[in-house]
Amino acid sequence: MNFKNFPMVPRVVFGRGSFDQLEEIITSKRTSTSSPFIFLVDDVFKGSPLEKRIPLYHNDKVIFINSDVEPKTSQVDALRDSIKEEFDALPSGVIGIGGGTLMDLAKAVAIMLNNPGSSEDYQGWDLLKNPALYHVGIPTISGTGAEVSRTTVLTGPEKKLGINSDHTPFDQVVLDPDLCTGVPLNQWFYTGMDCYIHCIESLTGTYLNAFSQSYGEKSLDLCNEVFFNGSLSEDESRDKLMMASWHGGMSIAYSQVGVAHAMSYGLSYLLGTRHGVGNCIVFDHLEEFYPEGVKQFKKMVDKYEVEIPKGLCANLTDDDFDTMISVSMGMVPLWENALGKDWKQVITPQKLRGMYEKM
Amino acid sequence: MNFKNFPMVPRVVFGRGSFDQLEEIITSKRTSTSSPFIFLVDDVFKGSPLEKRIPLYHNDKVIFINSDVEPKTSQVDALRDSIKEEFDALPSGVIGIGGGTLMDLAKAVAIMLNNPGSSEDYQGWDLLKNPALYHVGIPTISGTGAEVSRTTVLTGPEKKLGINSDHTPFDQVVLDPDLCTGVPLNQWFYTGMDCYIHCIESLTGTYLNAFSQSYGEKSLDLCNEVFFNGSLSEDESRDKLMMASWHGGMSIAYSQVGVAHAMSYGLSYLLGTRHGVGNCIVFDHLEEFYPEGVKQFKKMVDKYEVEIPKGLCANLTDDDFDTMISVSMGMVPLWENALGKDWKQVITPQKLRGMYEKM
Repeated sequence: MNFKNFPMVPRVVFGRGSFDQLEEIITSKRTSTSSPFIFLVDDVFKGSPLEKRIPLYHNDKVIFINSDVEPKTSQVDALRDSIKEEFDALPSGVIGIGGGTLMDLAKAVAIMLNNPGSSEDYQGWDLLKNPALYHVGIPTISGTGAEVSRTTVLTGPEKKLGINSDHTPFDQVVLDPDLCTGVPLNQWFYTGMDCYIHCIESLTGTYLNAFSQSYGEKSLDLCNEVFFNGSLSEDESRDKLMMASWHGGMSIAYSQVGVAHAMSYGLSYLLGTRHGVGNCIVFDHLEEFYPEGVKQFKKMVDKYEVEIPKGLCANLTDDDFDTMISVSMGMVPLWENALGKDWKQVITPQKLRGMYEKM
Repeated sequence: MNFKNFPMVPRVVFGRGSFDQLEEIITSKRTSTSSPFIFLVDDVFKGSPLEKRIPLYHNDKVIFINSDVEPKTSQVDALRDSIKEEFDALPSGVIGIGGGTLMDLAKAVAIMLNNPGSSEDYQGWDLLKNPALYHVGIPTISGTGAEVSRTTVLTGPEKKLGINSDHTPFDQVVLDPDLCTGVPLNQWFYTGMDCYIHCIESLTGTYLNAFSQSYGEKSLDLCNEVFFNGSLSEDESRDKLMMASWHGGMSIAYSQVGVAHAMSYGLSYLLGTRHGVGNCIVFDHLEEFYPEGVKQFKKMVDKYEVEIPKGLCANLTDDDFDTMISVSMGMVPLWENALGKDWKQVITPQKLRGMYEKM
């Protein structure tokens, strides 16, 4: 058996207000005054006080990005091309500020600024030719674990799949729970549930070992504290959900996600459903696979009176279903983790179609 | 407030049998065929099957080290000097195999092979002139957290204090729980209690934040599973204690140890008491500061019928006491973490002497 030599984020700052240390942190990483830092920032922060706190010098550039859609390989390539066109020198680094979409875009753009061709060429495992540029992740919503993971999940023309590599993780993460102040309830819930769901998938999976288990259990404990314990202050709740996301991301190191992610990738690919809500839509129907986890999930949905969209698949054609089923069944490691080597005895195209039809 | 930009171990392998991946891991790190890897190995492994599994090529060298005494600055300097004398080229790296003593020695030797002067010059915070050589930690007993920490604790002519720096952490850690097979009961207990005790100190300390808390809580949960849950297999127990140690080490990131460590440093400095047992000797008398933790600790001592040495201070002179008290009271951040800024209102030389006299 060969165990992964797992790359951890080598530098992390945690603390309320720690965003203000960004300037000090990146200054020594500037390669020259003509090599800008590129800040990819969720456009919800356009004109916000946070925008004014971004430390800009020389020819540094902020690019605002709308995160209503999942990140695409074409988007990554276009960002890379526009940056290369605008600047003569290679940037000093890429800094992502936002949720999972911005985390994944920052990782992917840092990779593609130093690798030839299209990002779709690298969807898979360990396909990169060169390391990424220096890149920093600053999450502003908690749950995805993208701040600590070894992947950047992109939707390409042929598949929704990550660029999984040792060069993908951030060189630096800044965890400032204050940045999560003011996230709308639905988004807070969907993204937090991404964490809850991947912990359930990881902890019940066949790939699990004690390393991943310890992170997954802690992440789940923290989710329970945040979503069930009414006595936390808002500050404490943001602190703990940020740590839940961090540990949840680590729990995938020697593990994998499972049925919910495999199916929600199909939804995202066909319908562009965003990852967090897509997981919730699917997980709501997975009692068969995760009875305890789904029971708790439904309690949380009730407690926060969050709406889980229904009827997404009501008007789909046979071709649509076939596409979703094909994308989903292509996620072999996820199914193997969830159900073991013989997963195809349980999961057939017919079975999946029946499940999707309920969503 | 300024938060530490904490350096994490950038690479980690976890798994039973993962030691056999060491060769593959270090091969690409060899700087030349005349630059050896230096393996610092606890001498309990001399002639053992593990010795034969150490991957030696070219002029690689194994140095066996007795860990009955705590690591010293003079020992680090002598090791560095003998390596420099024997080899023309700077080594490719240093690999430590053993417990906390070997972890600390490997870190310190890797540092001193690339820094001038004596290791005692660097006891303190962020004093290094140059980075360390590539260094790998492979723990064979669990609890110290030295495999993941930002320090290497050394006894010098003037003080017992760590070389705390961003260059101190290992570049690579191999966590193979199988290597902990056959550790004698007393040593297993004392070292495991190092973890338990620093979690109690960290979690009850004034420095704590949500980052450190989440690691400390998980570590403590795992300690409780290992030391109180009779239903774990030996394999599971070794797995979980290795993770307890890992998370326990991380829990110090934004926190500190406390009264037990501050006082046991005094014992070690004067009497050479080893760190694990020293902590146990002290903690046994700390109901006043850690009532719940000490109660649980005493239950564990009873359960495993472990002997906690007594009467160490019975025949000490006034000068001896003064030395211990002075070393202990010099550990300002530990006392501050435990008792707050006004710790000197509680901890006086008289108070400490009274406490030491009971030990």
